[in-house]
Amino acid sequence: MIARPSTSIEQTEAVIALLRERYGDQLTCNATIRRQHANSTSWHPVETPDAVFFATSTEEVADVVKLCAAHAVPLIPYGTGTSLEAGVNAPFGGITLDLSRMNAILTVNEDDMDCVVQAGVTRKQLNTHLRSTGLQFPIDPGADASIGGMASTRASGTSAVRYGTMKDNILALTVVMPDGTVCKTGTRARKSSAGYDMTRLFIGAEGTLGVITELTVKLHGIPPAIAVAVCAFPDLASACNTVIASIRYGLTLGRIELMDDVQIRACNAYSKLDMQEKPTLFVEFGGTELAVKEQVETFRQLADEFGCETFDNASAPDDRSRLWTARHDVYWACLQLRPGSKFLATDVCVPISRLADCLVETHTDIAETKLVAPIVGHVGDGNFHVSVMAMTEDAEEMARIKAFINRLNRRAIAMDGTCTGEHGIGEGKREFLEEELGATVGYMRQLKAALDPNNIMNPGKIFTH
Amino acid sequence: MIARPSTSIEQTEAVIALLRERYGDQLTCNATIRRQHANSTSWHPVETPDAVFFATSTEEVADVVKLCAAHAVPLIPYGTGTSLEAGVNAPFGGITLDLSRMNAILTVNEDDMDCVVQAGVTRKQLNTHLRSTGLQFPIDPGADASIGGMASTRASGTSAVRYGTMKDNILALTVVMPDGTVCKTGTRARKSSAGYDMTRLFIGAEGTLGVITELTVKLHGIPPAIAVAVCAFPDLASACNTVIASIRYGLTLGRIELMDDVQIRACNAYSKLDMQEKPTLFVEFGGTELAVKEQVETFRQLADEFGCETFDNASAPDDRSRLWTARHDVYWACLQLRPGSKFLATDVCVPISRLADCLVETHTDIAETKLVAPIVGHVGDGNFHVSVMAMTEDAEEMARIKAFINRLNRRAIAMDGTCTGEHGIGEGKREFLEEELGATVGYMRQLKAALDPNNIMNPGKIFTH
Repeated sequence: MIARPSTSIEQTEAVIALLRERYGDQLTCNATIRRQHANSTSWHPVETPDAVFFATSTEEVADVVKLCAAHAVPLIPYGTGTSLEAGVNAPFGGITLDLSRMNAILTVNEDDMDCVVQAGVTRKQLNTHLRSTGLQFPIDPGADASIGGMASTRASGTSAVRYGTMKDNILALTVVMPDGTVCKTGTRARKSSAGYDMTRLFIGAEGTLGVITELTVKLHGIPPAIAVAVCAFPDLASACNTVIASIRYGLTLGRIELMDDVQIRACNAYSKLDMQEKPTLFVEFGGTELAVKEQVETFRQLADEFGCETFDNASAPDDRSRLWTARHDVYWACLQLRPGSKFLATDVCVPISRLADCLVETHTDIAETKLVAPIVGHVGDGNFHVSVMAMTEDAEEMARIKAFINRLNRRAIAMDGTCTGEHGIGEGKREFLEEELGATVGYMRQLKAALDPNNIMNPGKIFTH
Repeated sequence: MIARPSTSIEQTEAVIALLRERYGDQLTCNATIRRQHANSTSWHPVETPDAVFFATSTEEVADVVKLCAAHAVPLIPYGTGTSLEAGVNAPFGGITLDLSRMNAILTVNEDDMDCVVQAGVTRKQLNTHLRSTGLQFPIDPGADASIGGMASTRASGTSAVRYGTMKDNILALTVVMPDGTVCKTGTRARKSSAGYDMTRLFIGAEGTLGVITELTVKLHGIPPAIAVAVCAFPDLASACNTVIASIRYGLTLGRIELMDDVQIRACNAYSKLDMQEKPTLFVEFGGTELAVKEQVETFRQLADEFGCETFDNASAPDDRSRLWTARHDVYWACLQLRPGSKFLATDVCVPISRLADCLVETHTDIAETKLVAPIVGHVGDGNFHVSVMAMTEDAEEMARIKAFINRLNRRAIAMDGTCTGEHGIGEGKREFLEEELGATVGYMRQLKAALDPNNIMNPGKIFTH
C-alpha cells in the first residue's frame, strides 16, 4: 500500500514561503496559473496545485525536491500539459514543477546520432534545431509535447511502427530522485548490460519516481525520399489484413494510420474533401528513391489482394501534404462533427491479429451506446484511439461515455492487449492497470514505496491506493 | 546496503531434503554436476552451489523459490551456463535452478510476429522451430544461449545494429518473484504505457530480482535477399569512419563487424585464408534484391571514400559463408593463436564517435602489456570485445590481464561509454558499475532490497555489497 501524502496546510505554506524567499517570481500562487497547470484534455475533473514553480536548472529542481521531501509536500512535474489521462492533476495539492523554462538543447552529437536536451524542450523545437543536420527526433504523439513529458508517459504516436516508442529512443536520463539526489541513469553508449535498466524504469513512471530533468535521446536520419499512399477498403478487416501482410513482408513503413468511416466523414466535412467514407489507410514510406518506389508498388499489390477500392499515392512534398490532409486535420474535424462538444481521447492497443475484431466490436459498441466517436489508429502497432465527442456538462452522457471506455479497456485486456498504448495511466486508467497486470502492480507499489516512501512524487497517479 | 545471505548449513540441508522428498531425481548434489553448473568462460574462480535442481514448470520454480525464501537459501538461475562474467557462480552456496528442461515453445503467433517460449529454449532451437514461417528470432550473442539467460544479461551480439538487444525484443515475461509469486509483466500488445516497465526491469537483472520462466519475444521476417561484403582498411579510424557514414546514410545493415589485424592473422592461420592483415569490416545487408544491390553499391562508395583497400562481396549462400568464414571461426582461431591458453572475453561499448580512439588506445595498451588479445567489434553499436588469450595458471600474467581489463573499463567509462555492452556485470564488473553510474547504483540496491529483502536471488552478482 502506498502512503497517502499526509501534508498539512502549514507544511505546504512553509515550502511556499521558503521557495518565494529563495526564488522570488519563479514561484506563483496565482489562481489562473494554478488552474492552467492542472488542465488536461481529458474528462477528469481539474485538481489544482497550491503553487507553481518554474524551474530553470537541475540544481533548482533538486533544491525544490529536497524542500518538498523535508515537508512531505507533493510535487507534480509539468512539461506542456498535454497529458490525456490527467497526469498533471494535483489531487493532494502541493507544488507543480513547471519545466518549460528548462528548454536548452545542450549538445548534438551528429556522428553518434544522439543529443542531450533539457526536459522542457519540445519535439518540434528539437526538430527545428536539427534542421541543418539531416537528422530528426521522429517520435510524434501529435501534440508538441515536451520530451521530458513524452518520456514520462512512454509516449509514441504515428511513427512508432518504424522508430519505436520513447522507451526505444532514450539512452540516458538525468533524474532528481525523491530525496533530491541527482542521478544519471546511463551513458551515451548505444547499448549496455550494466545493471538494472534504470532508464526504462523512469520512462513511463509518470513522474512518480523522480523528476526527469535531462535526456540523451537517439536521433535518426531523415530518409532521402518519402512517399505516401492513401487507400480505402470495404471494411475494417481488409484494412487490418493489409497492415499485417505489409509488416510480415518487411515493408519499412514510416507510418501506417487507419481512419474509420466516421472519421473520414468528419474530415470530408471539415477539410472539404471527397474521400470515400470507408475505412482508409494512410501510409508513409521512406528510404532511397528506388527503395520507396519498390515499396509503394509492393504495398499496392498487397492492398489490392485485400480488396482495396481506391489507391492514391504521391511523392512530391505538396502532393503528400494534400493526401495527408485528412489525417492532419483529425482533431479539428472531430470538434466540428459535433459543435459544442469536447474531445475526450482514449486509446488501447491489442495484438495486431486481434485488431480487426477489437475495432469492429468497438464500432458496434459506439453505435449501440449512441456516441459520436470517430476512430483513428496507429494500426501498425495494433494501437487505436477513440475520440469521444462529449457534452461534458451532460451527466447522463458522461456516465454512458465512462461505461463505454471501461468496456473498451476490458475488451483490449481480454484480447491480451493493454488499456493504454501511449497515453499513460494517470488518474484515468488506474483500476485497469490492476485488471491488466494483476499481482505485478503490487511489486510496482513496492518499487514506488522504496524510492518515494512519503509518496510526494506525483501522488494519486498510476496507483489506485 | 544489500543483506549478505545469512544461510546456515542446516537451512540449506533442510531445503535439499524437502526438495528431494518432493521431486526425487530432479535435485542432485553430485559434485561434478554442481561444478559444471558454476562453470563459466571467464577468469573468475568457480564457486559451486550446494545442489542443482532441474525445474520443469513455472509452478515448480515457484515452489522451489518459496522453499528457499522460507529458509533464506540462495537461488542461482541457470540456462546454458554461457555467462562471461560468472553470472552462474554460487559465492554463497545454495541451489542452482537449472531451467534447461523448460524448453517448450508454447505458441507462435505468426500474424503478430511474436511467440511465447519457456526460459530454457535456446535461440537456435527457436529458429529451427520457426523455419517454415519465414520468421526469425535474430538476436545472436554467439553462444547458443537460452532465451531466459539472454534476457537476464540483456544480451545482444552481431545483429543488434539492426534488431536491437534483448530489451528491444521482449513484450512480456513470466517471472517468479523472490517471495514465490508468479507475475506477468506485460501483454502481447506491441506497445503500452501501462505503469512501470517491469519487463525491462527484469531484462538485465541477471536473476537478482526473480526467475524468468516464460518470455513473449518479438519475431522478425527473414529478408528475401541477403548480401555480404568484406573490406580491409589501412587503419582502425578509416574502418570506424566508414561505419559512422553508413549508419548516418541510413543503410540498413544486418550486421557490421570489425576484426583487427591480430584477429585477421589468427583467422588466416586457423582457417587457411590469405586475407590482408589489416582492420577489416564484415558487413551483411538484407532486404529485397533491388534494395540490397543498391545498399552494397552505396556501401562500396562510402568504403572507398575512407580508403578501403580490398572489397569482396557476395550474395549466393555458399559465397557468403566463404566470405564470412573468418568471422565464424574467431573463437577457435584465437585458441590456436596461443596453444594452451584459455579464452577470456571482455567487452565495452562507447559512443561510436569515440570508437576509433578507444580501439587505438586499447590496441596500444595490449601491446604495452604484452598480451595476446585480438579484437572483434560489433562496431555498429560502438561495442567491441577483447579476447585475451591467457595462461590462467600464471599468476603474474593474470594480474597483468586484470589490470588491463580494469584500464579498458575505465577507458570506456571516461569516453561516456559502458564497462559492459552485452556481457552483464556478474561478479566481474561490479566495481565498474559503481564507477559508471555512481549514485544510481544506490537506488538499484534499494530496488533489490525492496523486492528481495533476504537477498536470496543470485546473491553476489551486480553489487559489490
